[in-house]
Amino acid sequence: MSSTYGTLFRVTTFGESHCAAVGAVVDGCPSGLKISTADIQQQLDRRRPGQSHLSTPRDEVDQVVILSGVEAGVALGTPIALTVANRDQRPGDYGAMNTIPRPSHADYTYQMKYGVRASSGGGRSSARETIGRVAAGAIAEKYLHETYGVEIVAYVSAVGEIDAPWIDPARLTRIEVDQTPVRCPDLAASAQMEKMIVDAAAEKDSLGGIITCVCRNVPVGLGEPVFNKLEALLAQAMLSIPAVKGFDLGSGFSGTRLKGSQHNDLFVMKGDRIGTGTNRSGGVQGGISNGEPILFRVAFKPTATIGQPQKTIDFSGSSVVLEAAGRHDPCVLPRAVPIVEAMAALTLIDLALIQQTRMNRG
Amino acid sequence: MSSTYGTLFRVTTFGESHCAAVGAVVDGCPSGLKISTADIQQQLDRRRPGQSHLSTPRDEVDQVVILSGVEAGVALGTPIALTVANRDQRPGDYGAMNTIPRPSHADYTYQMKYGVRASSGGGRSSARETIGRVAAGAIAEKYLHETYGVEIVAYVSAVGEIDAPWIDPARLTRIEVDQTPVRCPDLAASAQMEKMIVDAAAEKDSLGGIITCVCRNVPVGLGEPVFNKLEALLAQAMLSIPAVKGFDLGSGFSGTRLKGSQHNDLFVMKGDRIGTGTNRSGGVQGGISNGEPILFRVAFKPTATIGQPQKTIDFSGSSVVLEAAGRHDPCVLPRAVPIVEAMAALTLIDLALIQQTRMNRG
Amino acid sequence: MSSTYGTLFRVTTFGESHCAAVGAVVDGCPSGLKISTADIQQQLDRRRPGQSHLSTPRDEVDQVVILSGVEAGVALGTPIALTVANRDQRPGDYGAMNTIPRPSHADYTYQMKYGVRASSGGGRSSARETIGRVAAGAIAEKYLHETYGVEIVAYVSAVGEIDAPWIDPARLTRIEVDQTPVRCPDLAASAQMEKMIVDAAAEKDSLGGIITCVCRNVPVGLGEPVFNKLEALLAQAMLSIPAVKGFDLGSGFSGTRLKGSQHNDLFVMKGDRIGTGTNRSGGVQGGISNGEPILFRVAFKPTATIGQPQKTIDFSGSSVVLEAAGRHDPCVLPRAVPIVEAMAALTLIDLALIQQTRMNRG
Amino acid sequence: MSSTYGTLFRVTTFGESHCAAVGAVVDGCPSGLKISTADIQQQLDRRRPGQSHLSTPRDEVDQVVILSGVEAGVALGTPIALTVANRDQRPGDYGAMNTIPRPSHADYTYQMKYGVRASSGGGRSSARETIGRVAAGAIAEKYLHETYGVEIVAYVSAVGEIDAPWIDPARLTRIEVDQTPVRCPDLAASAQMEKMIVDAAAEKDSLGGIITCVCRNVPVGLGEPVFNKLEALLAQAMLSIPAVKGFDLGSGFSGTRLKGSQHNDLFVMKGDRIGTGTNRSGGVQGGISNGEPILFRVAFKPTATIGQPQKTIDFSGSSVVLEAAGRHDPCVLPRAVPIVEAMAALTLIDLALIQQTRMNRG
Repeated sequence: MSSTYGTLFRVTTFGESHCAAVGAVVDGCPSGLKISTADIQQQLDRRRPGQSHLSTPRDEVDQVVILSGVEAGVALGTPIALTVANRDQRPGDYGAMNTIPRPSHADYTYQMKYGVRASSGGGRSSARETIGRVAAGAIAEKYLHETYGVEIVAYVSAVGEIDAPWIDPARLTRIEVDQTPVRCPDLAASAQMEKMIVDAAAEKDSLGGIITCVCRNVPVGLGEPVFNKLEALLAQAMLSIPAVKGFDLGSGFSGTRLKGSQHNDLFVMKGDRIGTGTNRSGGVQGGISNGEPILFRVAFKPTATIGQPQKTIDFSGSSVVLEAAGRHDPCVLPRAVPIVEAMAALTLIDLALIQQTRMNRG
Repeated sequence: MSSTYGTLFRVTTFGESHCAAVGAVVDGCPSGLKISTADIQQQLDRRRPGQSHLSTPRDEVDQVVILSGVEAGVALGTPIALTVANRDQRPGDYGAMNTIPRPSHADYTYQMKYGVRASSGGGRSSARETIGRVAAGAIAEKYLHETYGVEIVAYVSAVGEIDAPWIDPARLTRIEVDQTPVRCPDLAASAQMEKMIVDAAAEKDSLGGIITCVCRNVPVGLGEPVFNKLEALLAQAMLSIPAVKGFDLGSGFSGTRLKGSQHNDLFVMKGDRIGTGTNRSGGVQGGISNGEPILFRVAFKPTATIGQPQKTIDFSGSSVVLEAAGRHDPCVLPRAVPIVEAMAALTLIDLALIQQTRMNRG
Repeated sequence: MSSTYGTLFRVTTFGESHCAAVGAVVDGCPSGLKISTADIQQQLDRRRPGQSHLSTPRDEVDQVVILSGVEAGVALGTPIALTVANRDQRPGDYGAMNTIPRPSHADYTYQMKYGVRASSGGGRSSARETIGRVAAGAIAEKYLHETYGVEIVAYVSAVGEIDAPWIDPARLTRIEVDQTPVRCPDLAASAQMEKMIVDAAAEKDSLGGIITCVCRNVPVGLGEPVFNKLEALLAQAMLSIPAVKGFDLGSGFSGTRLKGSQHNDLFVMKGDRIGTGTNRSGGVQGGISNGEPILFRVAFKPTATIGQPQKTIDFSGSSVVLEAAGRHDPCVLPRAVPIVEAMAALTLIDLALIQQTRMNRG
Repeated sequence: MSSTYGTLFRVTTFGESHCAAVGAVVDGCPSGLKISTADIQQQLDRRRPGQSHLSTPRDEVDQVVILSGVEAGVALGTPIALTVANRDQRPGDYGAMNTIPRPSHADYTYQMKYGVRASSGGGRSSARETIGRVAAGAIAEKYLHETYGVEIVAYVSAVGEIDAPWIDPARLTRIEVDQTPVRCPDLAASAQMEKMIVDAAAEKDSLGGIITCVCRNVPVGLGEPVFNKLEALLAQAMLSIPAVKGFDLGSGFSGTRLKGSQHNDLFVMKGDRIGTGTNRSGGVQGGISNGEPILFRVAFKPTATIGQPQKTIDFSGSSVVLEAAGRHDPCVLPRAVPIVEAMAALTLIDLALIQQTRMNRG
């Protein structure tokens, strides 16, 4: 249950870390949208392992195949099935883990919930599950861009204790983000982060951090009060990404320190539209987009898999020392950037389609 | 659309700030559960306005009426309709706001989304909408407590720049929380917060803060990967509460600063069950509860309605100075405590019912 | 669970036969729609008991109250809560039935499913549950009529063995239907049916029959393949009405006797649109409306409650003779006409709103 | 939208008639269930084209591949992706149809709804879409059989004007059904039907008919009042099958002719359980299964594709004569038998899982 996201633009992902294939079915893609594998591959390439020296050596090309729903490069409005083969299957790497639940992993909880689990890797909690999201998100993003000019750009704003300085969300591009393997557009901070990641890898340790995301040109009116407020669905979307532990929007946690007189976004004219002079609301008021950039942060814990020995217990309760041998990233954030973008796009397109039902009110 | 929350335990809320009544329909309540209005009223009383000198003078008794689904104090398994009359209707208070969208309120976005809005008050973005949630949450909580011994306790852990010291989540009770009108169980911090709120009110200003919540005795196995992970649904639930701008779980945002070797929760035996020595995961691993206390924080922005004059514009784009005259809390956090608890209960019960479908596996 | 119908226009009904009130919450009603209680009352009056000598003497005025979601006669786009008080509560009438499950009623299955049931009446399987549907359906119908000119007219086409002759669906009006208490627009057949119902009542027996429904001016394109085909949702909607045992569309069961060469609807020009010369498809092809009138039939079994003694068993398994004393209609069909219309309207509006998301494809 | 069926056991199908592959994703399959491709292939083979002289010569082996969710023959509880390649792709066959909407097909409505459609074949209205349902249904059926002993058997009870005599639903097996290519277990009727189909094929014409289905050993208590009554979901499920125009349950349309005193199912003891002496209710009362066999009928119109010339119009409105050249069955009923069984299984498993949430009420 619950591998489906969305109401009108519905994405269902499938696949474990070491089964035959992972992928997604996108149901409800607006017909007529032009879609090529290249549109999708672009974001998958930004997510794939082995893309830089900072990433796991598990080398997967992650080539997407479109099975249905697109003919002659045009979406038919019918379900689009997308698959990516799992070429690099090495279940042996994880052998010992069958009896030892890895700390801060999903091994223990999956076993308890389902009474069985994939014999190797993280099963559905594996990062490979996110391939289906990224593929589907690329389609959503294309629609949003062509229909409304929406631009979604995420970047790494913190790794461990290193914070990037403020970066202007109004102009940031993916090209700037992709200048470095860390995907932090501030080159000085990026260099520090890169060194920190290399050092952590050398120490068989891992790092967490923060991804910041901006969505520009989102039309006014998206978000369905009260339980499907835009920020509520974004929060769900982001917390559904593996390793995410927090989300905030606009002024977020730091805004709780301000007074109302400091925090309120006063209205001003911006050309011929009503806007706000500041954007502590993060582009959302009352759960509905207000036309300002949507700004949010996503907190990632440090990678749970580390090479250092850990004193823990096995499923029978006996003390053991676990040393992970599998492939893993010392810091998932650079590769998580397109995942955050994908989940943002999937959230926005669904709300945009729902809002289109209100367009003919005259 | 989207005033319904949940899959098997479904809550639909209704009502604006100044219509005849607000309330909820609870569909899917397990039959046989004993329910009285007193069970529900208890939490409504903790939410109602005018309960202390820190709250709005809008004095509503907020008495719940059960219209259906309960007979002789027992749930029939059929929809339970709950209503609370809006006795204190003073639409006049908000007259000026028809033409002036209040800064950081939902007036502008509702008008743009729907082409119309309630002539007074915040409509569905009003805090009165949450009455239905609190009433439904009280039912959910009773079931969770009777079935699993679940205990949910939320408290105010920060107001503005004042943070409560660490409070042991393993033992905290609602009685301790309710010792002061602030609902911060640390008396020293509470006194400081109380003074700060009184001062802000005197300055016609407002404050935000943080509510921390713990859910104890949650059974292992709740949460539906991948999009309905426990933390993802909690995040949605919390961000759906008016004025909430952020959510984090376990180590949350501060955990991003740690290394994996510092952050991982090593497994240990706790009596006859497998537990973790630390709880940076916040009781959830891979989207599934692991039997440790579920711990999360919710960030509330300062109340948008303030009495100070604000330079803004009206719907026609003309500059105006707005001075709010309506009733409002200078700080919503004390009254938001039962709302956070209610949304946590609604999230947990739905996942618990879904997990019960897996109980007969052998 | 499952007292909610619809995706974008969502109706949640509540209420048992003898609780405080029955009603519905309509979530997703397009904002700006003008709604008055009179709009709703009109259909409730056609459904209410005691409206003619053919109906149960349970005399309920069934006056609807709008609690929320409408201000100054205009829908706000927020949930519309509708209630109808249960004034005539006589639980005593059903006392004996606590231990004797009534044959072909829901007493036995509710008891087994929920472990408890309403002490009197049919609980949620009572006809009073349909009040919420009729109220919500009246709103849906108004939108469909104002937006597309949709006209929905149902009528009684058979009672027991008496069939009405063919009636032209292109022109039938509710005024014609309401000429007689039977709601069969053919006056000769109606008179026969009326006599048959009176006779059955005298014999303490009951009758079933068929309601035929036409929906005119439904725009082309409604229906969501593959599981939410228009005819699939209509079938669900109709089979959800108490006492319904069958549904067919267009040529339906009798069409199975024809050959393809006899059955196919050949395309022809109708003014400036493509239509079909015949309409054996019943206005739907491939699950999508084609612009022709939607035509379907709904089979109702004879009322299960009869005054005649019935040899059955009680819950303990002991043989008993049951003689029902409660109030009941000898034939539910005349009062079921607005229920069929309501469920048709609720199905069509939801599909219409979904299809509006495709309107801007340019 | 709407290629997903079910709440807890969710099936999403994908694929057009001539794309790379068709299939389904099954989300919510109970973990621990043993699943092999053979379990699934068995029903796919009963559905596949070219299995007898009565079927289309389009020869597809329709070999299922399991991509995910099953490891070492055991369901992990995670999404099971199933694909079947479309090996026999001959879009050329349908060339002329691009400009001529086939009568009583979905060409016209798909074009109007989506603004585009698959260039050949019926797209999602193609019978190939049902492959995903049959594959998913085989999994559902295995669970229902192992958990409750459920047996689902469908058969052809009418072809054109030939009706099979009454067949005892209590004992019928699939082996008896599969004795003849028609899948009517009455050999005399089957022989007549077979000749009729062969004759229709020779005349380039087509036939419809009725499939009857029985579900035995369904536990008491399945079905969710009020909109998801068991019969309502069965009706939706059956009407979602291509070419279906009607559904009835138990006494169905013919039961409308009876009086209540003739129709009611009186309760009797059956061993140690309460049962009914007759089964005009078709195993369902008040929307909930009562432990008796569930009995229903499904009406199929004659195949729309016929080789005879048809006078119709093209999309521009010009008169044309269409002679279909594609491959098609003169009567779809024999191959539709496993589709009806699959949809019944998908309906029952979902309701069974939901009802399991009520099992611990103590």
